[in-house]
Amino acid sequence: MTQSVDHETVVSRLLGADDILILCHKNPDGDTLGSGAALCLALRRLGKTAAVLCSDPIPAMYAFLPITVFDGSFAPRFVVAVDVAGIQLFGDKNNMPRYAEHVDLCIDHHASNSGYAYESLVDGSAAAAAELLTSLIPELGVELTPDIAACLYTGLATDTGCFRFTNTTAATHRAAARLIEAGADVATLNERLFECRSHARMEAERMALESLEYYYGDRCAMICLTWDQIQAAGVAGAELEDLTSLPRSIEGVEVGLTLRQQKDGSYKISVRTGNQTNACSIARRLGGGGHPRAAGCEISGNLDNAKHAILDEVKKELDRAAQAAEPDA
Amino acid sequence: MTQSVDHETVVSRLLGADDILILCHKNPDGDTLGSGAALCLALRRLGKTAAVLCSDPIPAMYAFLPITVFDGSFAPRFVVAVDVAGIQLFGDKNNMPRYAEHVDLCIDHHASNSGYAYESLVDGSAAAAAELLTSLIPELGVELTPDIAACLYTGLATDTGCFRFTNTTAATHRAAARLIEAGADVATLNERLFECRSHARMEAERMALESLEYYYGDRCAMICLTWDQIQAAGVAGAELEDLTSLPRSIEGVEVGLTLRQQKDGSYKISVRTGNQTNACSIARRLGGGGHPRAAGCEISGNLDNAKHAILDEVKKELDRAAQAAEPDA
Repeated sequence: MTQSVDHETVVSRLLGADDILILCHKNPDGDTLGSGAALCLALRRLGKTAAVLCSDPIPAMYAFLPITVFDGSFAPRFVVAVDVAGIQLFGDKNNMPRYAEHVDLCIDHHASNSGYAYESLVDGSAAAAAELLTSLIPELGVELTPDIAACLYTGLATDTGCFRFTNTTAATHRAAARLIEAGADVATLNERLFECRSHARMEAERMALESLEYYYGDRCAMICLTWDQIQAAGVAGAELEDLTSLPRSIEGVEVGLTLRQQKDGSYKISVRTGNQTNACSIARRLGGGGHPRAAGCEISGNLDNAKHAILDEVKKELDRAAQAAEPDA
Repeated sequence: MTQSVDHETVVSRLLGADDILILCHKNPDGDTLGSGAALCLALRRLGKTAAVLCSDPIPAMYAFLPITVFDGSFAPRFVVAVDVAGIQLFGDKNNMPRYAEHVDLCIDHHASNSGYAYESLVDGSAAAAAELLTSLIPELGVELTPDIAACLYTGLATDTGCFRFTNTTAATHRAAARLIEAGADVATLNERLFECRSHARMEAERMALESLEYYYGDRCAMICLTWDQIQAAGVAGAELEDLTSLPRSIEGVEVGLTLRQQKDGSYKISVRTGNQTNACSIARRLGGGGHPRAAGCEISGNLDNAKHAILDEVKKELDRAAQAAEPDA
């Protein structure tokens, strides 16, 4: 079981340590990389040896971060994990399992953190690990340089969808203000992080919009991608995942559906709903499950079958919602 | 000529006034409406009679703002304009020309403000008029209520593209923090303001992506809409205008082109460039003009002619940039 520690203890542990290895989570995002890079820069400004390690390669869009990648040139004597909620998230490449076994300190903002580290600073109210480090780094006695501020802003902005997601708080905005004052070039960073879409992403959006259909007086919108289309577009992972929010983002749409054909021909269906209908109720009736506003299920058989089955359940749920909305129904 | 005034003078003028008419600009956006609504709520909390007037109807997406619309039930004795940079922006409906002739006070963040009001508080460093009012309203002695905060957050967030545009400063984020603490429900507001796209917008994006073409090793991307397509989609104004940023937003694209056919068959071309090429140089050679990164021109003749002409100029500019980048070229 981990020991929960406060900022003061974290500061004293880091000031007392040297030859520090900073671990990020696999499939790294802006927060784990930005936080790792910032902490590493801060520790090196204190004259310490420090480097960052991640199981997976650094994605091209984060290549601009000034990250000192661990190359085995020192023997780590203190291991810190940033933004890593559980031990399975370290990944298994780059000798990672060996280091992940003995994590001295964890700095994280996931309330669900499993407590794998010897000591942990977990603040579930923070929007990003970078929000925690925006106060921790000055507490270490290190000034927020423009470089450090750019790393932290990257974490803060990407984890909040540029201050749009529901995890954004007053403290998040105050941290952003502090980072801008410290010299983070947010005009360049925002363009890099939010204005740039890959060819694959454009192709995925094109396919999705071509297939867009409306049902039930435009209360339901559906996009549909066949296995062949997905392969031809060379679209995968996050790009496909992001599309699932598209149909529900259309004005007046209460239920958004994304049908993606799998290799075996079956259809994976993502259901997103507004606050009048329950996505999980819809998905559960087809053997799936999830959360009230985001759920999923899988249907075998051809596209017509899949569409028919899911649209039937959507209709029932929309009818139920309409009845519930009527007074004295 | 207007008299520039400071916060203190604005506060004393507003505290001394009653029967106050607040004017917004035509084609109203989130900032003019949110700022107008917030100021009106604040003045009414002080026991004053106040209402908001706009030449154009309030767009559906801002219908949630608690705006007291001026209905002629009092004779205005003091006229304040919010977020209105010039007299031509008042519009000409709703008796507007009559009121716009004698504006007592203007509160604005456009450095280009023409100075039409008797007294003006213009702060070009503020991202939105709402940023100014976030400090002005408490200076009036009125607490930022959740309602007032929601109106001001709407102005702040829409004018900055949710804190993404280059006008966003540390002060903007501090204002946002203050509004969240005052009770603005930013989760609901952000969903309403940023997660919702109209059918027409989706249709415009679909058309644009269908027509997307890459040139010159993907350094140039072009979208192209014919007059018939634009009519069929029922897309106009802001939705079409927004599309012009799409081609340049693709990874690796230095020059983004949007060709829109006009009613007379000619093509209106929008040119957007990165920091290696000059959009204005490209457009100027075809009789157009604009800014270094955003410019435009018009070409008569058929689509092939228009494409050919603009692509030729793009190639010259890309070649020039490539040469300039080579050392000792």
